[in-house]
Amino acid sequence: MTNTLDRILKEIKPLDTKATAAARQRQDNLTKPRGSLGRLEELSIQLAGITGQMLPSLEHKAIVTMAADHGVVAEGVTLYPQEVTRQMVFNFLGGGAAINVLAKHIGARVIVVDMGVVGGFESLPGLVCKMIDFGTKNMAQEPAMTRQQAIDALQAGIGIVSSEKNNGLNIIGTGDMGLGNTTASSAIFAAISGYSPSQTTGHGTGIDDRQLAHKVKVIEKALATNQPNPKDPIDVLSKVGGFEIGGLAGVMLAGAAHKIPVVIDGFVSGAAALIATAICPQTRDYLIASHVSAEAGHALMLNFLELKPLLNLNMRLGEGTGAALGISLAEAAVKLLSHMATFNEAGVSDIETPEEKGA
Amino acid sequence: MTNTLDRILKEIKPLDTKATAAARQRQDNLTKPRGSLGRLEELSIQLAGITGQMLPSLEHKAIVTMAADHGVVAEGVTLYPQEVTRQMVFNFLGGGAAINVLAKHIGARVIVVDMGVVGGFESLPGLVCKMIDFGTKNMAQEPAMTRQQAIDALQAGIGIVSSEKNNGLNIIGTGDMGLGNTTASSAIFAAISGYSPSQTTGHGTGIDDRQLAHKVKVIEKALATNQPNPKDPIDVLSKVGGFEIGGLAGVMLAGAAHKIPVVIDGFVSGAAALIATAICPQTRDYLIASHVSAEAGHALMLNFLELKPLLNLNMRLGEGTGAALGISLAEAAVKLLSHMATFNEAGVSDIETPEEKGA
Repeated sequence: MTNTLDRILKEIKPLDTKATAAARQRQDNLTKPRGSLGRLEELSIQLAGITGQMLPSLEHKAIVTMAADHGVVAEGVTLYPQEVTRQMVFNFLGGGAAINVLAKHIGARVIVVDMGVVGGFESLPGLVCKMIDFGTKNMAQEPAMTRQQAIDALQAGIGIVSSEKNNGLNIIGTGDMGLGNTTASSAIFAAISGYSPSQTTGHGTGIDDRQLAHKVKVIEKALATNQPNPKDPIDVLSKVGGFEIGGLAGVMLAGAAHKIPVVIDGFVSGAAALIATAICPQTRDYLIASHVSAEAGHALMLNFLELKPLLNLNMRLGEGTGAALGISLAEAAVKLLSHMATFNEAGVSDIETPEEKGA
Repeated sequence: MTNTLDRILKEIKPLDTKATAAARQRQDNLTKPRGSLGRLEELSIQLAGITGQMLPSLEHKAIVTMAADHGVVAEGVTLYPQEVTRQMVFNFLGGGAAINVLAKHIGARVIVVDMGVVGGFESLPGLVCKMIDFGTKNMAQEPAMTRQQAIDALQAGIGIVSSEKNNGLNIIGTGDMGLGNTTASSAIFAAISGYSPSQTTGHGTGIDDRQLAHKVKVIEKALATNQPNPKDPIDVLSKVGGFEIGGLAGVMLAGAAHKIPVVIDGFVSGAAALIATAICPQTRDYLIASHVSAEAGHALMLNFLELKPLLNLNMRLGEGTGAALGISLAEAAVKLLSHMATFNEAGVSDIETPEEKGA
C-alpha cells in the first residue's frame, strides 16, 4: 500500500516563479539599500515561491515533534537510558521541554507524535498516535524495520500534515525525540552519501571519544549487515532508519505537495531530509535549514543537501528547537516583505531615481 | 560639564557572579543534555549576570534608533543623497522602515532620536530631540565636532536611558541612521585599533570598488588632518565621529551602569561600542553582539571588541535591524532558563543520577 505516498509525490511541483519574481521586485522597491536585508530577502523570496503568494502569511505555525525508540541502543551508543524517550513525551505534553518554551516564544503550536516509543501510551490528550511498533529492531543485528513499516512511517507523516491543514498551517517546523536516533541518522547519511561513518558520526547527547569510536563501529556493522541500497531511500530508511525519521520525511514530502514551507531542525531532521529529497529531489526547494548544530557531520550533511543554515548557535538538542528559531526568522522575513514602505510610499529618495529627490 | 558622564562611569560594576553561578546551576538541571542549548545557555547566564537576577525578565524591550548627518558626505562617500537621513526619520515615525517591522515582530518599542539631522524637525510626536548640531563638520577638512559636542552626545544617550527606564526597560537594542556614518565608523575603528583604513572600510550602502578606494582615501585624509589620539576615545569621537555614534556610546555606558543589557547592531553600533569600551572597558560585559554584518571590517571590529556575534545573515542595513533579531534570541534564552522543567520536576532520568531512573 503506497497509494498515499504515490499520490503526494505527484503533487510536488517546482516553486512558483511568478511569485518569486514579484517578491523580488517588491524587495527592490522597499525603503532600504537593495539587498541590505541579506538572507532575510532571499528567504522572503523563497517563501513567496513556495506558497505561490507575493506576500505570504505565516500566521499559523506548528512544530511537529515526533518521538520513537531505536533497538540499536542495545549496543550502548547513548548516555541516557532508553526510558528518557517516553519520559520526554510526557514532558512535551506537560509543556516543560525546551521546544514548548520556544514554540510559545514564536507563537507556534507543538504537535507531539508517538511514532513508536517503547512501552507505548494510553490515549493522552494532546498526543497524536501514529505508532508503528514499540521501537525499531537493533540495526546492528537485522533491519531496523520492514519495508512496509518504512512506508507506513512516511505515510503517517503525510497524514499529520493533511489533518493539521484543517487547523490552519502556514509553516511547519520539524523536531525529533528518540534515544539512539543520532546513530540511525549517521547511518542514513553514510548510506546515502557514501561518506564513511567516521565522517558522519558525532557525540550525540555527549558521549566521549572512546564511546564515539564504539558508535562508529556499531554503524559500520549495521551498514555491513544490512547492505542498504543507496539508490533506494525507502530501503535505507527500513534498514538503518527510525520511525520518527520516516515520519518527518513524510512531513517534508507533504509540505512540498501542499506548498507549505518546512523548516528543518538539526541532525535527525537532516537525515529525514536526506530520505525525502532522495525520494523526490524537488522537495529540497520547500525546505529551510534552520541551523547547523554542534553535532559533527551536520555541516557536511547540510552541504550534501545543498541547504544553507540560517543559524549557528552551537545547539544540539533536537525536539525542533532550532526549527522554532528558524520559523521566527522566516516570519520576520515575510513581515518585512509585506509591511515595509516602498520608496514612493515613504517619500524617500532612491539612488536610481534622482528626479524624485526632495520628496 | 561632564558631571553626568562621570557619575554614570562610577556606577559601572562587574557582572553579578552569584547570579551567573545560580543560572549556570539551573541550566545544568533543566531537561536537556547539559550544554545542548549552546549559545542560548551562555547568553542566559550573561543576562543573569548583567541584571543580577537568576531568572531575568526581558518584558520591556526598546530599540534606540539615533539619526544624524555627517559633513563628510561632501567628499562623495555615499550613493544616496544626504536628505535620505531626514526622510528616513519620517519613515521611522510613520512605521514603514525595516526597524519598525522587526521591532513589532519582537514586541519592542522604537525610540527615534534626532541627534543632529540636517534641516532639523519641528516638534514631532514620537521624535526625541537631542539635536547637537545640523550634522557634523567635514572631517576630511576639520574636526567633525568639538570636544564639548562629543561629551554632549554621550550625555544625550545617557539621558535617553535614564528617562526611558521610567517606561520599563529590560533590554536595549541600538540602531543608527545617517548618510556617511560608515565612513565615520571606519575612521573611528582605524584610529582606535591601529588597523589601516583599507582594512576597516567597506562598501556601506553599496558603493563600487572605485568608490571604495576613494572612501579609503577620504578616511586617510581625515585621520592625517585631525590626528585623533587613540588613547583618548572622546578625542577620537570628536575628530572623526558622529553625533549618533556618540549618543549610542552613551546608551551603552548607561545600560551598563543601570544593569540593562545592550544588544548592539552592526558596523556603526560597533564603532559606538569601541568608544564606550575605550572609555570604560567593563562596559563590554553588558554588550551582546547581535550579528556580523556584510560590511567589510565588521568581523574584524567584533574580534577587536572580543564580542562574538549571534547571527550571520549577510545584513547591512543598520537602524537596529540586527539588534532586534538578537533581542528575540536573548528573550528566548531567558525564557528557556525560566520556564523549562528540571529533571526532578518532569520525572526525566538524568545520566548522573541513575538511582532516580524509572520515575
